[in-house]
This record gives sequence, C-alpha cells and structure tokens, in this order.
Amino acid sequence: MYRKEIKVLDCTIRDGGLMNKWLFTDEMVKAVYEACVASGIDYMEIGYKSSEKAFSRKEYGKWRFCDEKDIKAIVGKNETNLKLSAMADIGRVEPEDILPKSESLLDMIRVACYIHQLDKAIWLAEHCIDKGYEATINLMAVSTVMERDLNEGLEDLNKSKVPVVYIVDSYGSMYCEQIELLINKYRERLPGKTIGVHMHNNMQLAFSNTVTGIIHQCNMLDGSFLGIGRGAGNCPLEILMSFLKNPKFKLKPIFQVIQDYMIPLHKEIEWGYHIPYLITGAMNQHPRSAMKWRDGETRDDLVGFYNYMMDQKDF
Amino acid sequence: MYRKEIKVLDCTIRDGGLMNKWLFTDEMVKAVYEACVASGIDYMEIGYKSSEKAFSRKEYGKWRFCDEKDIKAIVGKNETNLKLSAMADIGRVEPEDILPKSESLLDMIRVACYIHQLDKAIWLAEHCIDKGYEATINLMAVSTVMERDLNEGLEDLNKSKVPVVYIVDSYGSMYCEQIELLINKYRERLPGKTIGVHMHNNMQLAFSNTVTGIIHQCNMLDGSFLGIGRGAGNCPLEILMSFLKNPKFKLKPIFQVIQDYMIPLHKEIEWGYHIPYLITGAMNQHPRSAMKWRDGETRDDLVGFYNYMMDQKDF
Repeated sequence: MYRKEIKVLDCTIRDGGLMNKWLFTDEMVKAVYEACVASGIDYMEIGYKSSEKAFSRKEYGKWRFCDEKDIKAIVGKNETNLKLSAMADIGRVEPEDILPKSESLLDMIRVACYIHQLDKAIWLAEHCIDKGYEATINLMAVSTVMERDLNEGLEDLNKSKVPVVYIVDSYGSMYCEQIELLINKYRERLPGKTIGVHMHNNMQLAFSNTVTGIIHQCNMLDGSFLGIGRGAGNCPLEILMSFLKNPKFKLKPIFQVIQDYMIPLHKEIEWGYHIPYLITGAMNQHPRSAMKWRDGETRDDLVGFYNYMMDQKDF
Repeated sequence: MYRKEIKVLDCTIRDGGLMNKWLFTDEMVKAVYEACVASGIDYMEIGYKSSEKAFSRKEYGKWRFCDEKDIKAIVGKNETNLKLSAMADIGRVEPEDILPKSESLLDMIRVACYIHQLDKAIWLAEHCIDKGYEATINLMAVSTVMERDLNEGLEDLNKSKVPVVYIVDSYGSMYCEQIELLINKYRERLPGKTIGVHMHNNMQLAFSNTVTGIIHQCNMLDGSFLGIGRGAGNCPLEILMSFLKNPKFKLKPIFQVIQDYMIPLHKEIEWGYHIPYLITGAMNQHPRSAMKWRDGETRDDLVGFYNYMMDQKDF
C-alpha cells in the first residue's frame, strides 16, 4: 500500500557534485534526468544556485551555478512530470541570482542553512516563493543544535510561509529513536507543513532513517543513485524505490543508470560507507576531517584516523 | 546507557567463509580472535561443525569442520573472557561430530535450521546441551515461513530446553516493522528465553534491524568485521560496537583488523551491498541467484539480472 502524498527527490547531481566539484559530463546528467523521468521520481535536484562571487567557474562545474542555458541543454523545455530543483546555501547566493519563475526551468528552490542562519533562510525561501517557486528549508546538522535553539527556530518556521521543512542528518550520526523524536517535534510545532528527510549513510542508516521518516508521516524523501553524495553519501535511491509501492515507480531505468554511469564513476571518485566516515558519524562531527584524511598520504591508515579523532575530542 | 544482558557475537570466520570456502590464513583467524578478545566481544563463531561425509577436505578449509586441534592452534587454551562458538547445520553434521564439552574448546553450538527441520534442530541443540554446551537455535529464512507454521514451531521451541532462539533474516528482506512484529511474537511465545538477531545487509538494513532488536529487548546480537558474509553480508560489527555503550568494549582492535585484513581481503573476494543482492532481498529470495550471476560472464549486467529475476517471478 502506498501513500500518495510521498514525493521522492533525487539529489544525485547536487549532492554527488560535492565529491567531484560538479564536473559531470552532460551525457551523465542527461542520463540521470531521463532515468528520473522514466522511473516516476518526483523531483530532480540538478545542482546549486550559487553566486559567481562565491565560487570560481574555473574550479567548479556548471551545476554549482545552474544557469538556465545549462539546464535547458539537458532538459529542453522539460515537458515531463518531473519537477526540477536547485539548492541555495545561505551566504553563497544573492537574491538576484534567483530569476523570476517565469524565466526559469526550475520548479523548486531548497534553501539550506545552519541554525544561526535560519532568519536569512526564511527570508530567502519566502523571496523564492514570491518569485513563483516552490520552496523548502533544509536545516542542516540538526544533530548539533541545542534543544532551546531548535524550538525557537521551529517557532520561526511555523510563522513563515515556507511549506516544507527538512530534517537533515548532515553528519550521518542519528538513529531511529533520535529521528523519531525530531519528527514528532517538527510535526507538533509545524502543523500543516510537510516534513522532509535527508539522511546520510555514515552508520549505514540513511535508508533505514528514511523508512523511519516514512513511518512517521514525512512525505519528502531524498535519495541518490547508488547513494552518491558527500563522504558516506545519501540514502540509495534504488533501495528507497524498491521499498516504496507507488505503481508509477519503475526500477529498471534506475538500475540502468547505476550500471552505465554510477559504477564506473565509483571507480574514479570515492563515496559511501567507510571507517573514517563511520568514526565522524558516530562522533557527531562533520565528515570534512575524514574526507581530508582520505585525500592524504596516510589515507589507508584507519587506526591512525581513529587516534587522530580521539585526540581531537579534547578540544 | 548500556544493557548488561546484551551479548555480541562475531561471525566473521563462520559466515565470511561462505564466500571463500573457509580458506582463511591462520594468521587472519588469529588476528580476528585476538581482536575479539581485546575489544570485549562476547562470542566468536569460528566456523561450522560439519561431517566429512557432507563436505570434502580437498575443497573446503578447516573452519568448515572446526577440529579441536585446529581451534587449539589459534586460541591455545583460550584463557580469556571470549567464548567460542561453532554453527551446526541440520543435515550436514552427525551427533557424534559433537564431542563432550570437556574435550572441546568450544563453548556454544548454534544449530541452524529451516522450519521443516525444526524438530531435528531441537533434538540436536538439546543433545549439545546434554553434552555440556550452551546452545541456540537459529531458525533461518523466517521471512518465508507461513504464520501458522511459525506459531507451531515457536510452540515446540517453547517446550524445549534451548535457551536462545534467533530471528534470522537470511535473505536480507525485512525492515523494522516486520522485525518488530517477529520479535513481539517470539517474546510472547518464548517467555524466559533470550532472543537473538542475525541480520543481512541486502537493503542496507542489517545494522538498523539489529538496532530494532536492541530496542525490543533482543540480547544476542550478531555482526562481522566490515560486514563480511554471504552475498550482501552481515551487520558490520564495527558499527554495532560504535553504537553499544558497554564500557568494556574497545574499537581500536576492530579497526586494526579491518585495516590489516578485511580491506585487503575485500579486494580478493566480493561481499557487501550490491544491486543483485538488493534485488533478491527486495524479492525475499535466497541470494544464490545473485551470487551465481556475479560469478558469471555477465556479472556487471545489473539490468540483465533484474530482467532475469522478473522472469523468474512467473514460476
């Protein structure tokens, strides 16, 4: 039995790009787009809207910026049921980077922020809504937000006109009982709003925590092909889609993209469960130290990383 | 806060051996043993007790048989807090293969069976108890057992003197709500017995389902280093041990074995999450078809395997 309110969002290119600076081939982005359409996925997040003041075109690929002409080259007029999304990070985008909806192929802007940026995020998300977009707020690293601050933030979100709020397990540090408590809190304090879940896989809990979301009435679910994403990555879309029962969903296009693009890409760039990411996740810390370790000369010294992180604990 | 009744069992060599016919080096088995001792794990399952009539010594390594002299070569007199276990499969072992406890380094025999073998399993487990061992029954593939048969089986188990009964997700096909229902049923119908969980990772739920076990008072928890095991493998012991809070547990010895042995081994033999195993898991089928596919010439044709399995469905 399926719940028709559930929407699935693919963030393969947006979150996966954190691992290769969005230097995907157009062919691959088009293959992901076409698989999203064919498999009945609801939203595809194609990248970030970013200011050129924040990132250099020389270093970063086009999905760091999501220009309309680049989107058009992939999706044409997007005359499909798939909606397109881009993420905007507070501090890395200017309001004028967001075109009026009538001039854009994007349907939705997801505003990502940390708790101290929440006022700016609400302003920007409402600005996007005023320009004609759907909008969400993705409050990152909620596992490190103190209870009082979160309660106050949820009060502000409740007063806003932003209709969708995400629980984001940025560090992949949460398990089902923690997720359940947060969902109950969000649902109680944000009546009438849709709750979304974006989970990371440091402890191999990204899919399972998404299932916890499903059980507790979260209706926006993020995933990516083969779980590509920063560090340990995201909820693998193929597992989520195997689990959900909406008759419009098809699995074969997803497996085809995994076979043709994701597995070859996985040989070039690293993502997914690994001991250093388990360690940062279990310690409720940003994966950046693990990513840095995996980029260094002692990358395979897992015990060395464990020792390093244990020392850090005394900070 | 930890629950002192929880016991952790490492099945690295026993379940991992399903992928390499137990052809581990003594050095590696000794490293796993020493890491289990040093990290405070409660049981190490070192292999299967099998009859030489069932398996050839020419084809299978020593941990298919678990002779006392071979165990002794690894553990000496095992003057540690670590208990040793071996698994016995109904139909592949003779009662006389089980020595009296006084002549054995093994502390526990776990009897694995399918539902139609349960009477034999109870007989064998009680035979082991009579010989002086701890014993468990691991009822495999419970996801395919019909409700009436399971209820009858639990009645028989309740009448037996076997103190520990495992919920085994052989196909890696279950998620938390199904596990919870089974646990509640087992607990209700087996008052006074300990319930164990042995979970597989086809849908990346092995750890999460083990957590469901913990939440619902299961006190025997299986895992293996880096999740080694048949097909998609088991609950990764390192994640489980990062999660549990018993102050006697240590993580560093586990990471050391993963670094020194498991990651190199993973380059030689394949286990862990992969699309073919996701497909068999989601279809509640034995992974053997996926393992066979991964051994064949078209091993990387994931869509081909999906098509093949969809056709099978019409049987």
